[in-house]
Order: sequence, then structure tokens, then C-alpha cells
Amino acid sequence: MRTDYCGNIDSSYVGQEVTLCGWVNKRRDLGGVIFIDLRDREGLVQVVFDPDLPDVLEEANKLRSEFCVKLTGKVRARPAGQVNDTMRTGEIEILGTGLHIYSKANALPLDWNQENSEEQRLRYRYLDLRRPLMSQRLKFRSQVTAAVRRYLEGDGFLDIETPILTKATPEGARDYLVPSRTHKGEFFALPQSPQLFKQLLMMSGMDRYYQIVKCFRDEDLRADRQPEFTQIDLETTFLDADGVMAITEGLIRDLFNKMLNVELGDFPRMTYAEAMQRYGSDKPDLRNPLELVDVADLLSTVEFKVFSGPANDPKGRVSVIRVPGGASLSRKQLDEYTKFVGIYGAKGLAWLKVNSLEGGQEGLQSPVLKFLSEDITDAVLQRTGAQSGDILLFGADTANVVTEALGALRLKLGEDLDLLEGEWRPLWVVDFPMFEEVDGQYHALHHPFTAPRDVDAEQLKANPADALSDAYDMVLNGVELGGGSVRIHDEQMQSAVFSILGIGEQEAQSKFGFLLDALQFGAPPHAGLAFGLDRLVMLMTGATSIRDVMAFPKTTTAACPLTSAPSPANEQQLADLAIGVVKKNT
Amino acid sequence: MRTDYCGNIDSSYVGQEVTLCGWVNKRRDLGGVIFIDLRDREGLVQVVFDPDLPDVLEEANKLRSEFCVKLTGKVRARPAGQVNDTMRTGEIEILGTGLHIYSKANALPLDWNQENSEEQRLRYRYLDLRRPLMSQRLKFRSQVTAAVRRYLEGDGFLDIETPILTKATPEGARDYLVPSRTHKGEFFALPQSPQLFKQLLMMSGMDRYYQIVKCFRDEDLRADRQPEFTQIDLETTFLDADGVMAITEGLIRDLFNKMLNVELGDFPRMTYAEAMQRYGSDKPDLRNPLELVDVADLLSTVEFKVFSGPANDPKGRVSVIRVPGGASLSRKQLDEYTKFVGIYGAKGLAWLKVNSLEGGQEGLQSPVLKFLSEDITDAVLQRTGAQSGDILLFGADTANVVTEALGALRLKLGEDLDLLEGEWRPLWVVDFPMFEEVDGQYHALHHPFTAPRDVDAEQLKANPADALSDAYDMVLNGVELGGGSVRIHDEQMQSAVFSILGIGEQEAQSKFGFLLDALQFGAPPHAGLAFGLDRLVMLMTGATSIRDVMAFPKTTTAACPLTSAPSPANEQQLADLAIGVVKKNT
Repeated sequence: MRTDYCGNIDSSYVGQEVTLCGWVNKRRDLGGVIFIDLRDREGLVQVVFDPDLPDVLEEANKLRSEFCVKLTGKVRARPAGQVNDTMRTGEIEILGTGLHIYSKANALPLDWNQENSEEQRLRYRYLDLRRPLMSQRLKFRSQVTAAVRRYLEGDGFLDIETPILTKATPEGARDYLVPSRTHKGEFFALPQSPQLFKQLLMMSGMDRYYQIVKCFRDEDLRADRQPEFTQIDLETTFLDADGVMAITEGLIRDLFNKMLNVELGDFPRMTYAEAMQRYGSDKPDLRNPLELVDVADLLSTVEFKVFSGPANDPKGRVSVIRVPGGASLSRKQLDEYTKFVGIYGAKGLAWLKVNSLEGGQEGLQSPVLKFLSEDITDAVLQRTGAQSGDILLFGADTANVVTEALGALRLKLGEDLDLLEGEWRPLWVVDFPMFEEVDGQYHALHHPFTAPRDVDAEQLKANPADALSDAYDMVLNGVELGGGSVRIHDEQMQSAVFSILGIGEQEAQSKFGFLLDALQFGAPPHAGLAFGLDRLVMLMTGATSIRDVMAFPKTTTAACPLTSAPSPANEQQLADLAIGVVKKNT
Repeated sequence: MRTDYCGNIDSSYVGQEVTLCGWVNKRRDLGGVIFIDLRDREGLVQVVFDPDLPDVLEEANKLRSEFCVKLTGKVRARPAGQVNDTMRTGEIEILGTGLHIYSKANALPLDWNQENSEEQRLRYRYLDLRRPLMSQRLKFRSQVTAAVRRYLEGDGFLDIETPILTKATPEGARDYLVPSRTHKGEFFALPQSPQLFKQLLMMSGMDRYYQIVKCFRDEDLRADRQPEFTQIDLETTFLDADGVMAITEGLIRDLFNKMLNVELGDFPRMTYAEAMQRYGSDKPDLRNPLELVDVADLLSTVEFKVFSGPANDPKGRVSVIRVPGGASLSRKQLDEYTKFVGIYGAKGLAWLKVNSLEGGQEGLQSPVLKFLSEDITDAVLQRTGAQSGDILLFGADTANVVTEALGALRLKLGEDLDLLEGEWRPLWVVDFPMFEEVDGQYHALHHPFTAPRDVDAEQLKANPADALSDAYDMVLNGVELGGGSVRIHDEQMQSAVFSILGIGEQEAQSKFGFLLDALQFGAPPHAGLAFGLDRLVMLMTGATSIRDVMAFPKTTTAACPLTSAPSPANEQQLADLAIGVVKKNT
């Protein structure tokens, strides 16, 4: 119906007749001459209707914002003063000679010139997506997936689909259930990830698998989560952790290079222990220069119990964040930060302002200064590298509380004080513990199919607490882009892990019998990784929410204001499925 | 861990040392020398362990079928007499110098040298997929999806994901429901297709959309259906039917060319009316030369009521299939065909054998000959082009019964008598009726969003029965590969269709209010199509079931013998979802 996209018409078209289809972005009437900006996926172009063609002008007079039209016209250079250098079509305009209105538009319920509520944006998503910012994001996302596919296919990965109607998997979150009609009283689960299927594909000799695949978690949608999200999921046979990390690091490097013209370079590696120690996080944002500096050894003898207590407790931690230039923080700001660390269980936030390094204690200011000898203060200043104008912020509590509270505080300070350096700071976090112990019960830090490093099944059972896993997380700017591991390919080891996790033999058989079976028929060594596509695209486009890089996301209560899903089922449907609603929503 | 794939080692490697990983496909002990065929995704290679390296030989002695191993060895040419021309690695063998067993294998529960039950194959799918035939099919499928993506991306299509947790869509089949936890008593539906979302994407200006996407239908799985299947789904703006047909025909032509080195040429087009008339099917297999020839006008005056009744009934049909060489069919075979057409409601199957065209009635043989005058017989012979040795098979009943029964009989005869000609016979079927009337109620032949041809809303409402739709089905070898249509982009027209389908205003608002809303904001003309990927790959690989081109299909009762899904939910899960099981499976 058209000869080209609006956004493609540049000065090379001058003198040509074109036919374009699109939407009226803006319409102006300047003394009987009508100007419209016509918009399609590729951009805007200016069209002029003048009185020389009265019939066409009359039709153009009917145009309003968001009418959908086809028009024909001749491309001509704009008069010198009207050139717009900021757009591709800015040197030309089209003299409209024919116009057909496909469909009219009512006044829009969204005002693109201001913020609209999330609810309104999702309810009229088809209008929200007309905004160039949104359509460019979806276009960018499509280009990212295409580039990912090309890279992986070039590396021998096969795109293999795994089931959506499947069995509950133990990924930690709540499953979405789907009642079966043919097996009444039974349920499928939607996959939280294709973890076990991809492992089975490796056991079936597919060698290298990938899939860009929907996954599902029925979680409470605090923060930026969605009930369905998309993974770039991959798995390989006969590769170790280094092999998988090389492939996936190469993939992300290639993507940033091609899509953003950014050279990420080699990703540094950091152990989980170091990340928690220095950054109080297993996904440190390296753009943030602040670090946690441990000072328990320096403060173990002070009389101030708030410090010396945790300093002498094997499960305690005493750490300092030095904030360059932070001496100028106001009392009010410090009170707010104290409240902030309270969220993470910290009972207070001791501080020490270094107004001037010269002149000893005189240059320092702190409510706790009286508890510290000059020697100790000097040692702390030296270890933290304090400079005049800095502030030191102290955390002293159990290791968990200090790590979490100062880890979060570090991020907040970085943002509040605009301290971030550099644009892109990727890294690998490695050497995670296999298990975390909560109330005497071990939990898998990744998932129960992750292989431990350098121990056999007996050694693992003898000392689970100290075991490290062969897992690796890719982190970019403080966001976990992806995580993976070498998997267990030995039945004894898999059974040992189940038993450490408190999964009895009977439960293991009923839940994972098919995996334990499969491990008895020549299971190969295998390892893989999964990226969160939504987060990756969000980071790359600079969007602040994954909802802004999804075409039809759900609200934070997991509903769709556009289609009004979920909605009640009718009696017949429920009868077919042999289920009943126990309690209506109140 | 390896230097190359097993299947890639050819004579260019002679003299090199290689390290390979894979599975023991076969092991033979020939007088103290051990031969194994090592298998990976790319093929087999022969490895020899000889007594010169007793340690390695001892390890090799432990090998059994399907052990997973790594081995090192030197590539050498095979002795002249042992070259195997049928495989890439057939000119070489590897002298094994190192061997590591990753994992042992129990005796396999599947015997690859014979047919295994579907249940066993699915239960041990990871072993079933090790068969080269199966792994090649999955590899082929992956290559098909990659080629499709590349073609469509090259044509400006954006890959955009639509939701899996969504609202019930009216595609005709039963929906899978997903109870909502955050909106208790309400349900999501899994999409039967992304139809409405892709239309909304066109309204949002995305211009060209595609997705290779899972769809879901909770149907009784007679025939070759699966609860979840995959569509190549696409939609375009500002293109008419011809435009979409050109793109999608080009896609399939390109695919057959690249993947199978087959030139499909231009696809012929046939109207629905002609397809039903000549082939008794809306998806005719053009490889089958048999056709239905209408003879009602010739038989309207005969005394035999079985013929003259339907011949004089406006809703009747009398047709003949001429089967070349069919005069040799036995009485028993004819009885079986009579029984076969009975399935479709035909009360009998009159036949006329043309033993010899010479000699008038003498050369003919038929129980109904006595009812037919020589003139009439001659006219029938002439119209059907009968030759000596042929048989004519008659259908006389309501048009529906004759069309369906002879349409099915035509296919059966084509297969039984091995009549198919040519390998690939694609075509487009066009000009479908908008509606079919069943018991005074109109149903959409495609779906309620399909645009009619050449009528406005008033004309459509005045005469729905005669309206043709702007829909098109792509058919290959009697299989519907894909179907699509121009969609309605006008609210009046959409409301008219809903009203013809008996969907009242209130129901239309509650089910499709968001679509009717969207049509009021400058909706563009748009059209699209969806291919069934599973069927396409099945046809292209010569598989006989879509289950053989899916990694983890379900059984005909929609269950997964591998993971034992579906399975019972626990009390907590049901309580969270506020649903209860009304009746256990019996």
C-alpha cells in the first residue's frame, strides 16, 4: 500500500513521488496551509497540504491526532530556514497530493506529554506503545534476541523447545498450576525454568542447547518482578565452568559491541567471599567506588560495647564505609541513613567526620570519638584511607546484618551523592557456598543440581557448610544478568545433595526419580547458564523497569488491565476440570 | 574437553592427535583388539584399542554400550578393505591412546533395533533422543526456526513476545486455565493463539510482528494433536491478502530451497468452492490425481431413487470418483470401501467397473447398471473420462455427506493404490465463506476477526450466508501448513460480525471490549498468518507424527510419562489458590 517508511525519506528522495502510511502525530493549520507530521515505526516526516489542491486540502482539514492515513505526495527540499538537523527527514518535506483516511481516532485517554499512571498505560497499552520511546525499546529488544540467536547458533547451539505444561520444579518460588481435564484432580505446573529438561537434553546427546523461553513464578510482585519473564537459557556438554563463562561472556561482549558500540573488555572475576566482604553484596555494582573496610581487629579492645561486642564475636562484623566528601552531610541526612540501615536490622549508624586530617582529634567530629583512643582512631583513618572532608560510617552487628545494611547503604550513598564512575562495569562472581544454613536446615544457594567444587559425595556429606559450588553469576552494574553452574552428572552426588537438603529418599524418588534414573545411563558432564532477557534489555535501553521493555506486562498484583485477566471461569469450565472455587476474592 | 566432534573426523585429520567425547555406540572385541564406535551429535567414528597399550586396552575392556567417555588417539587411514563410503568418518579410524570413563550406563530399557512403545519412548525420552534419527530431527527443527527467523527479520519483522498468562480467547477449542492467587476465584487462560495481541501490536504501530510461540488447546487428543504446539505467528500492517501471501509463500519457498534443495515454484490458488467440488476437501492433496466429478444433471431422470433423489434435491450431490485401473478391485475391497464411506454417513457405495470400453454394456459390470440407460451410462463414462480397466465409485446423498465421504475415500484410494504423483504440491485455498450455518446459528469459519471481502457492515448483515472472507490457507500435500486473513479494522464491521455470530452487545463488551475500544483510535488495515511449526517440520523431515519432531511431547491423554505430569497438588498449594478438587480421577 506504501512505497516506503515515513522515517526513511531523506534528501535522496527529493523529486520523487512517494506513498506513505501512518499516523498523524501532529497537525498544524498555518493560515490555510496544513502541516502534519506523519509517523510510522521508523520515524516522522513532515507533509504539507496547500490550497493549490483544494480537494486534498479539504480532506486534510479533517485530520486529527492519531488518525491512520495513506497519503501520496512529492518529496521536496525544505526552505533553508526550516531544516531540522535532529531528524533524518529534517531536510525534506512532502507536498501532499492525495490522502485517504483509513480510520479516525477519538481523543486519546493518554497524554504523551506527561506521566500517565501505570494502570492507564497498561490499559491502553496499544496507545502507550505508539510512543517512539516505547516502540524503539521493543525494536531494540527484537534486535537483541536476533543477535543472541545468531551468536549462539554460530557457536553450535540448537534451539530446542521444552514444555510449558510440566511438573513442579524446585526453583524456590511458588508454581503456577494448571488443572488437568483428562487427569482430574491433578495439575501441571508452569516452569520456573527449563532446568531439568535442559539437563535431560544434554543426557540425550544434544550437546549444546539454547532457548529464549518464558518462565513463570507466582511470587508477590514486590520490586520489579513479573509473573512471566524471559530467559536466555543455555546448556552445554563436555565444557567446564571456564568454558561456559567464555562463551557467555563473549555473547554479552558481542551484544554490547554490536548494539551499543561499547567495548566491555574482559570481565574480572571475584569470589563470593570477596564480594560480600568488600561490597556487602553478591552482585556488586563496581561503578560505585565505596567499599566496606573491616576494622573489627582495631576495635576489639575499646570499651564501647557497640563496637567491641561484635568485634569479639566470631559471628560479628565491624566495618566502615568511607564516603569521600561526606563530612558535609547534614545531621538530617545522617538521621535518614540511620533509619535506612534500620530496615536491614542495624540498630544504629555511628559516624566520624574527618573535617581536617591535620591537628589530630581536633579535626575529627563524632559522637563515638570519646570511646576511641587516638591510636585506634589513627589506625582506622589509615586503614580506610580517610582524607580531609570524608565521613566514616560504621556498622557493628552480626556479620549478616552489617553486610546487608552496609551493602544497601553503599548503593544508596552512591546514588544520592552521584558517585558512580564509568558506564558499564561487568564482573563474574564465583566460588559461591553450596549451601546456606537457616535454623539448622541447609538450603541450596543456587539449585539442588549444582555441582560442588573439588569434593566427592562422601566429603560433601561430611562437611556441607564449607563446600563451594561450581557456580558463576554474571553481574553488570549491580544487576545479576545471569547465573549458571556445572551440574551434577553422578547419581551418588545427586543423592548426597538431596539428602543434605533434607529431601528423603522417597521424596527424591517421587519428585526427581526421572533425573536419578537418567543419571544411570551414561550421563555426560554438563554445565550451563541462564540470562534474564528482560533485565538485560532494560539495562541496555536505560529503562528503569522491566515493564518498559515488555509489550504487555502485568501490574504489581499480577493482572492485565488491558484484557481484564484474570477473570472468573464459568461453571462448565470448572466442572470439566473437576475443581471448585473455595473462596471468592474479597 | 575435546578437540572436535566425532562425526567431523575425516581423512584430512590423518596423522593428528584428537580428543573426543561421546557415547559408546557399539563395542566389539576381535581377538583381543577392541573396536568401538564413538557417537556424538555430529556422528560416529571408529576407535581401535590394541594390545600395544595394555593399560588403555584394559580400560577399554570395561566399556559397554552408552558409557559416556573421553578419549584421545591418533587418526589413521583405515586398511583398504575396511573403508566405509557411507559415512563421513568411513575412511579413517582412531588408534586410542587414552581413555577416561565419565559415567557408566545400565542396560537400556529401549531397544533401538526394534519399535518401542510410545509410552516407553516418552518415559525414557533422553535415551530415545540419542537415536541419530531423532537427534537429526531436532537439529533440523532448530535449523528451520533459525532460517524462518532470518527470513522474517530480513523482511522487517520484529520478534515481539505476547503473554502466556492471558484471557480466554475464542478460537473454538477449550482453554487451559490457570488459577490466580492474587485474584482468588479468577483464572488466566493459556493462549490458543496470540491473535488479539498481535492485532493490538499492529494498532500500536509495530508494523510487522512475528513470533515463534507456544499455543495451547485442551482438546481431546484424537489424531495427531498436542496440548501445546508451536506457531510461526506473524502480522503486518498496510498489506492486503496478496501482500501477506507473497511474503509467506516466499518464506516457505526459501525454506524448502535452503533446507531440502527443493524448488517449490509459484503456489497455485484455488477457491474453497473449487477445492470442495473437485477434491471434497478444503486442504486438497494435489499429489493425488483422483477427483470428484459431479453427475447429478445426468442422473436426475433415472428411476433409481438413490441417484435421482439427491440429484433433484437442491441440497443433494451426486458425484463420481474414477479410479484408473480400479476394475481389478475385489469384491472384498469394495465392501471395505463401502464400510469406510459409511463412517462419513454414506449409506452405500455404488460402483461401475469398466472392464472394456468396447462392446457397450457388455464391457461394463455394476449392480446398478440395470437402472441406467445406455445413453446415461455413456454420458457418465464420457464426463469422467473412463478408460478400460477403470472403476467409477458413486456418491449420492446430501452435499455434505458426498463431499466428505468421497473426499476421504479419495485420500484412502490414493494411499492404498499408491497413486500419489510428485513429491511436493503446495497451494493456496482462498475465498472461504465467512460463516457456516449449523442449526440456524452462524459460526465463523476462521475466527471472528476475519474481514469479509467486498462488502460493508450493512451488506454483510443483510446476507451473511453468501459472504466470502478475505482469508487464505496454505496447504502442502493435503496438510494445512498455515492460515491467515485480512482482519477487521473497523468497529462497525467488528460489531456486525459479533452480532451475526449471536454475540450480544453485553457479551461483546465483556469479552472483546478492549478490542472494540482499540478500534476507535486510528486502527490501521492489517493482515497476518500463522503456520503450524510442528506440522511443517514433520512434513519436511518425513516424520509421521508431530511427536517425533518435539523434544518432550505428551501422550494422547495429555500426560508426560517422563516427569509424571500432571500430578496431585498439595493442600497448601490449593489453599493458596482458593480452589478445591471436586472429584478425583476414577
